Amino acid sequence: MGTEIERKFLVAGDGWRAAALGPGQRLRQGYLAHGGGGAPVVRVRLVDDDGVLTIKGPGLLARAEYEYPIPAADALAMLETLCAPPVIEKTRTRVAHGGLVWEVDAFGGHLAGLVLAEVELAAADQAVTLPDWVGAEVTADARYQNAVLARAAAPPAV
Amino acid sequence: MGTEIERKFLVAGDGWRAAALGPGQRLRQGYLAHGGGGAPVVRVRLVDDDGVLTIKGPGLLARAEYEYPIPAADALAMLETLCAPPVIEKTRTRVAHGGLVWEVDAFGGHLAGLVLAEVELAAADQAVTLPDWVGAEVTADARYQNAVLARAAAPPAV
Repeated sequence: MGTEIERKFLVAGDGWRAAALGPGQRLRQGYLAHGGGGAPVVRVRLVDDDGVLTIKGPGLLARAEYEYPIPAADALAMLETLCAPPVIEKTRTRVAHGGLVWEVDAFGGHLAGLVLAEVELAAADQAVTLPDWVGAEVTADARYQNAVLARAAAPPAV
Repeated sequence: MGTEIERKFLVAGDGWRAAALGPGQRLRQGYLAHGGGGAPVVRVRLVDDDGVLTIKGPGLLARAEYEYPIPAADALAMLETLCAPPVIEKTRTRVAHGGLVWEVDAFGGHLAGLVLAEVELAAADQAVTLPDWVGAEVTADARYQNAVLARAAAPPAV
């Protein structure tokens, strides 16, 4: 078990592409449990061709997280048969800035147009130098949680 | 992924103890997702000192099932912090009868007094010789699903 401490921002513009640490990964993810009301989130994800099952405790900035590799065929079958549609599709690009690695998620499908950047921290009060390509912080805005986005009809209105 | 086909019965008396295939295992289990309404069940279990995470599709007699070993410390932490209380406690004893292996679950805690027997089949219409220590079949009775029992105040009234 780990505790995930993460800040999340809207992305403004394409400036992040210049600092990309490689090609993006294709992520497809769905939810066996959406959380809410203190309940855990149970997420199934395909990262390119690797399956991952993740359990997250409640919380926005900091939350317990358990992650386990699973066979890709299991992940795909769960995405297709057990997760409530639609599945989230996004491309994740790792981007270096200010000594930290950011993850920029460009969404597709029903969330096309939405781009979010996340940075994982060692402590909630860690100083972060914001890149000029991030906009408003949405860490505390539950609408931008992926388990909520999965059920949204479209990206949240900014 | 497998498909689990299982029939479940109430147990009448102690006759099964004579055919036990060994000492019972101590099971502690809780739910990250309780299922219902077509949603999957996500179960955390400690089998003696082994952790197991199980995902079950909807259904009573036959259902998709995915099972993964996880660290016991993770399972214990999830039972204590993420699963809705109370945790189910039961002793599972394997019992031979009619060429099949039955699992007899004697519940403790809030379900003390309840004893259920399950037999896993290769096909839903497989012939089964019932032992004389089983009573009414409860395969189709959702009250006897463990995810439902976990939230019950006491064993269902027979």
